[in-house]
Amino acid sequence: MKRNVLIIGAGGVAHVAAHKCAQNNKLLGDIHIASRTLAKCQAIIDSIHEKGSLQSPGRLQAHQLDAMDIEATKFLIRATHSQIVINVGSPFLNMSVLAACIETGAAYLDTAIHEDPAKVCEAPPWYGNYEWKRRQACKDARVTAVLGAGFDPGVVNAYARFALDTYFDDVESIDIIDINAGNHGRYFATNFDPEINFREFTSTVWSWEQNQWRANSMFERRQDWNMPVTGMSTTYLTGHDELHSMSQNLGVPNIRFWMSFSEHYINVFTVLNSLGLLSEKPVRTAKGVEIVPLEVVKAVLPDPASLAPAYTGKTCIGDLIRGTRGGQAQQVLIYNSCDHEECFEEVGSQAISYTAGVPAVAAAMLIAKGSWDIGEMANVEELDPVPFIESMNRMGLVTRIQDAHGDRILRPRQESIYEPKPRMLVNY
Amino acid sequence: MKRNVLIIGAGGVAHVAAHKCAQNNKLLGDIHIASRTLAKCQAIIDSIHEKGSLQSPGRLQAHQLDAMDIEATKFLIRATHSQIVINVGSPFLNMSVLAACIETGAAYLDTAIHEDPAKVCEAPPWYGNYEWKRRQACKDARVTAVLGAGFDPGVVNAYARFALDTYFDDVESIDIIDINAGNHGRYFATNFDPEINFREFTSTVWSWEQNQWRANSMFERRQDWNMPVTGMSTTYLTGHDELHSMSQNLGVPNIRFWMSFSEHYINVFTVLNSLGLLSEKPVRTAKGVEIVPLEVVKAVLPDPASLAPAYTGKTCIGDLIRGTRGGQAQQVLIYNSCDHEECFEEVGSQAISYTAGVPAVAAAMLIAKGSWDIGEMANVEELDPVPFIESMNRMGLVTRIQDAHGDRILRPRQESIYEPKPRMLVNY
Repeated sequence: MKRNVLIIGAGGVAHVAAHKCAQNNKLLGDIHIASRTLAKCQAIIDSIHEKGSLQSPGRLQAHQLDAMDIEATKFLIRATHSQIVINVGSPFLNMSVLAACIETGAAYLDTAIHEDPAKVCEAPPWYGNYEWKRRQACKDARVTAVLGAGFDPGVVNAYARFALDTYFDDVESIDIIDINAGNHGRYFATNFDPEINFREFTSTVWSWEQNQWRANSMFERRQDWNMPVTGMSTTYLTGHDELHSMSQNLGVPNIRFWMSFSEHYINVFTVLNSLGLLSEKPVRTAKGVEIVPLEVVKAVLPDPASLAPAYTGKTCIGDLIRGTRGGQAQQVLIYNSCDHEECFEEVGSQAISYTAGVPAVAAAMLIAKGSWDIGEMANVEELDPVPFIESMNRMGLVTRIQDAHGDRILRPRQESIYEPKPRMLVNY
Repeated sequence: MKRNVLIIGAGGVAHVAAHKCAQNNKLLGDIHIASRTLAKCQAIIDSIHEKGSLQSPGRLQAHQLDAMDIEATKFLIRATHSQIVINVGSPFLNMSVLAACIETGAAYLDTAIHEDPAKVCEAPPWYGNYEWKRRQACKDARVTAVLGAGFDPGVVNAYARFALDTYFDDVESIDIIDINAGNHGRYFATNFDPEINFREFTSTVWSWEQNQWRANSMFERRQDWNMPVTGMSTTYLTGHDELHSMSQNLGVPNIRFWMSFSEHYINVFTVLNSLGLLSEKPVRTAKGVEIVPLEVVKAVLPDPASLAPAYTGKTCIGDLIRGTRGGQAQQVLIYNSCDHEECFEEVGSQAISYTAGVPAVAAAMLIAKGSWDIGEMANVEELDPVPFIESMNRMGLVTRIQDAHGDRILRPRQESIYEPKPRMLVNY
């Protein structure tokens, strides 16, 4: 049993995570929120009180923290007696927050891969460049570190794991499909920090095909999918974190990630990118000012948090898995659909933040209860997916499955030929 | 007779004007080039020597000057014994350079209207906001000031005047059509300073219709024209300087300006403008830097001067004039077509700069010879178009006419029922 949660970051995902921790504070204990800007942490706490999200009276506290500073982070972990750290701050922070956890014994979890601000789309597998180098250190310190426990990466990894264990003898391909059919009503906006968002699309797009890495260009490969809820949806092959662990852990020859983009989004992105306005390298103006163009683009775009009140429509994110069972071709789609307006009603966020924040808290609760408190580092597909999917079904992120038997809510213990165990280590 | 020319500015138009002055220095005398950046003036002089543009050995000198400083400009006019000032610098400089001319007695000419950096697309007629307020001062000082003596404004004003005097009893409409069917081979670029260029398109588009101003939006009105040389060409109603004098001086009920834009140009412009990246108002980045987005866009776009070597294709700019003569409907198109590669071969510039720079020097030569040295302020349509068109026919900008009798070079004295006079003041 672990208690007391320190949330690092105060953006959209942190907002959702804090609300969900508050809704489960009998189990999780004290909730602390830390970021560089104290006022943003306080605003989240105010919102929790406004929505009445606290399950029972309890501690809810804001802290100013530069989480690049390992010593300051260790001090805060100890001062708050936090045994679980949910890192949903900038992806530049992962390695320093993880170091603080290893040195204090707190469990660590995050929702996105570590990034170096000076590098874009490094060599695959990305986890090998940073996180996995600390695997032995976690094991030595008996520290639990769950990597990529948002929706994608995170839930989609669990979906893949559950499908492999339950429905297939052999899996040929996993296509992760991420559709946002929502409408924020603005000319153009990104759903999270534009600087981080655009970095996903400005370099090599890696996919895992025929058991090896394949380098693609952004918007090079298009695929339309007839999805539940959102209907026929256009996606493009995109580079994404989860490929970099699932390719190494699942033994599946083809794993691809597809994200929906409107023609309008692609057009705006292409114009900005072609002109060099998405560059992280400084340019010099006629007046002699050195400035990073991407920072100026960020300054003129809407604050992603400001989109939530007017956001309408739904997301649909899931795994389409193809393979064989008993010699027969088999295909299942495991997915979730989330409604932007319902998310805003519940916690004051849009569905993109919601789908990333809820799984992080579901994972924290499994660490608190012990079933995911494994005392080492793991990606989500290495952990038991059953309690994770069950928790989320209760927390507002309901999983559905579409297969030869129709479309239904996925209740893992009813579906499963799979016997839940304290921990499964996959070894295909 | 006036001699010795001071060119203010060292951009693309100044480059062409300097070459053309050099080609005519027997008449024009010494040639001085002044701008804030001495090296840019010197580069133009080097280019004149490389191309062997000097008609006869003569003075050719570069000067550093902030032309916002009236006293410094007066000093330079006097020190160089310049009797003609060709102002082809930034449009923000017009009023200070004009003041220096009025105070020293030098003749003034420019190719674009004065602009206040803080204002975009002011109330019409634009000349009434600045230049025409100095009309009496010019008259009192017996100073010649020829406003807008580039191609458009400038040559197109002279075309209109010539057509009215020669081919019509009544004119119903003048459509000025500006087609650039050239290709610079870059993803996107402006043909002159992006800051000035975009200002033309970011606010109200004024047209003169039924004898009054009409406010339109940019890209609101599209018109395809079957033009000589460039063929079927798509244009959009655009605000432009010449409407603001021709509407007041010619007594024609409808005067419109149409500029060609590719779908690609419009798309890039629309994206940048919609995002607020063309704004002249500063924004604040996450790091707290105050910066004008338009200055950053300018910094990432190609330097317009760098486009010339690879520029191919042609321009076609002219006036389509409709009215009646002897009770019969009459239509004439008077135009020039210019080839980007030929311009580069001759003076090292593309055709956009060439078509603006050559008329300015043609005008300077008419001032030097006396026929346009009127001792007061005038727009081009108030002056005798015959020697102007004749000069340009000899200087590389050949005028053609397309009417019921076919398409031919326009030789004004052969066409004309018009008797050239020392100066015509129109009084419709």
